[in-house]
Amino acid sequence: MKFTISKQSFLDALQQVQHVVSNRTTLPILSNVLIEAADGKLKLTTTDLDVGVSGSVEANIEKEGSTTLPVKRLVSIVRELPAENVEVSVDAKNHASIKSGPSFFKIIGLGEDEFPPLPKFEDAKEYKIAQAVMKDSLKKTSYAISTDETRYVLNGIFTSFKDGKMTLVATDGRRLAMVENDLEFPSSNEADVIIPSKAVQELQRLLSDEGDVVVKLTDSQIAFEINGSLLVSKLIEGNYPNYRQVIPGNTTERVQVGREAFLETIRRVSLLASDKSNSVKLAFGPNYVDLMANSQDIGEASEKIDISYDGKEFAIAFNPEFLMAPLKNLTTEDVYLDLIDEMSPGVVRIDGSFLYVIMPMRVTN
Amino acid sequence: MKFTISKQSFLDALQQVQHVVSNRTTLPILSNVLIEAADGKLKLTTTDLDVGVSGSVEANIEKEGSTTLPVKRLVSIVRELPAENVEVSVDAKNHASIKSGPSFFKIIGLGEDEFPPLPKFEDAKEYKIAQAVMKDSLKKTSYAISTDETRYVLNGIFTSFKDGKMTLVATDGRRLAMVENDLEFPSSNEADVIIPSKAVQELQRLLSDEGDVVVKLTDSQIAFEINGSLLVSKLIEGNYPNYRQVIPGNTTERVQVGREAFLETIRRVSLLASDKSNSVKLAFGPNYVDLMANSQDIGEASEKIDISYDGKEFAIAFNPEFLMAPLKNLTTEDVYLDLIDEMSPGVVRIDGSFLYVIMPMRVTN
Repeated sequence: MKFTISKQSFLDALQQVQHVVSNRTTLPILSNVLIEAADGKLKLTTTDLDVGVSGSVEANIEKEGSTTLPVKRLVSIVRELPAENVEVSVDAKNHASIKSGPSFFKIIGLGEDEFPPLPKFEDAKEYKIAQAVMKDSLKKTSYAISTDETRYVLNGIFTSFKDGKMTLVATDGRRLAMVENDLEFPSSNEADVIIPSKAVQELQRLLSDEGDVVVKLTDSQIAFEINGSLLVSKLIEGNYPNYRQVIPGNTTERVQVGREAFLETIRRVSLLASDKSNSVKLAFGPNYVDLMANSQDIGEASEKIDISYDGKEFAIAFNPEFLMAPLKNLTTEDVYLDLIDEMSPGVVRIDGSFLYVIMPMRVTN
Repeated sequence: MKFTISKQSFLDALQQVQHVVSNRTTLPILSNVLIEAADGKLKLTTTDLDVGVSGSVEANIEKEGSTTLPVKRLVSIVRELPAENVEVSVDAKNHASIKSGPSFFKIIGLGEDEFPPLPKFEDAKEYKIAQAVMKDSLKKTSYAISTDETRYVLNGIFTSFKDGKMTLVATDGRRLAMVENDLEFPSSNEADVIIPSKAVQELQRLLSDEGDVVVKLTDSQIAFEINGSLLVSKLIEGNYPNYRQVIPGNTTERVQVGREAFLETIRRVSLLASDKSNSVKLAFGPNYVDLMANSQDIGEASEKIDISYDGKEFAIAFNPEFLMAPLKNLTTEDVYLDLIDEMSPGVVRIDGSFLYVIMPMRVTN
């Protein structure tokens, strides 16, 4: 195998696939990228057996062939190369020679026949979604994915194709984010799946604001075809909890606040939230909400925000990180805070498809 | 105590002193900044008992007085304040109220009488040095300070005022950096001291390119007066090793190389230096030097640099980090590499006062 390629396009293509590789060293081939040179293109593939990604890049192929090379090391070398172009040649022993200007590198690879193939997607259910919609929906939900490995069904985004809608839900049991979008698909394609967190991260990396993503679904695998790249992932097996019952039916108090100002105020006041309780209290009165936090032996913080409000006076406390998370990931000017009382979950909504349920904390005085 | 001050100048002044505070929580007052409000100024002081720093900033003082407040927390609050100005008032219990726009903070301080005073410098030897010279000399040497706490005399910069010269030396036993500058002082002021690493770091933060720094020296303490700020530090007690005997007398081979290109080449080639040997080999031949590194089971790298050289052919190996360190901290276009043979220390020199001795590593083939 022998090819010449611009340093920058080689680097970009490698960086797109390098995040998937496993840190487990039990199977060295999983640290490598499969490079297949044919038809004027390099096809690059990585996998950790759960998630796999492949992409291709144009190159001047002098001799077709395949090999696998350690991708992190290859990226670190290509990034530092001194000239605009790189010449790579690989011998039968999978020793790769990399030349660029006065630099010469030799790195030792492994045979491509050891590389585990990505799963096939025959007889798969298929959906076509605008990339911009998918990207926006993931941004609005993915921060709420649980990182608690003992609750593995929550370690991903629940994705439901039902009733002409695609619904994404993420929760860690203390807050829940949901986005729903209309989507055309045949009713035979109705399905509920859980996409693991790592695949969600890779998907967010690959998605752009233009064009479509084609999603393919089998019983245990999901694939995303995006701009010539392919991402495949195992699905999380198990039953996602009934999230609909967590969403409060009739909230009684609605408050509209400027998103960025609200975010800044929470951030400031939370500087005095104690490590122990880690809560910020929202006290509602006539046309104001007072945000407060205090930390024993250290001090306290408070800040008043003017709002349009003539409901009952009451106070409710939230974990400031959980309250800030949706505000950071939304882009609307204003958000709505829908509340019932100090004991009931609060809901953050916007003009548009988004809902965020957040459990209150005990108010201490 | 009560004062109003611009948020930005308060933040700048606090940030200048905050790095000194101790992370030890055994003595809470050492986490605090002493704030003294008088004569239209705030004086801010921090200390960890070894190193202390103080500075002052103009403020609108409504009521004079003193207190101490937790500096890291104060910085985190002031940084986030929403308005241009801050109003601070402190009551007799050292509870500080901080107001800025709609924000209100209360933080609990400690009495100023518990704050340990900085040492006095009466009957001190005094030196006046251009800040630019001091700053440049520290940049060229400080990276070579040993971080090995068992060799505490090496945990600082040896500073010698002798024979009309100020000499700075740092070494960790495997490389040594030295800068020497002419300086006028009475011969009664001749002295050798070791300035601890933490004081060197603070000093580098405070120095600018204009004006002078006044250095004051007693038997156990050193002070630096810079642009109205004061840095004081205990000196390291003990005998610095005889560094002069480490410097090779007659080097036989001199090579001139472009500093940045040499640095880039070492960085690239060192990507294939093994974790175990961590060395880069320099092989000299007629008008070239070949840089090489290899790592068993991983690969190898090499790159040739054209130089003017007609000396003997030989190879010498260095730790790449140690060879790159001076190149990163110098600013000259070229550097000289003075060598004897593969077993003898190498010396990096420039046109100007600087010398860097680096021990070779065993060459493996």
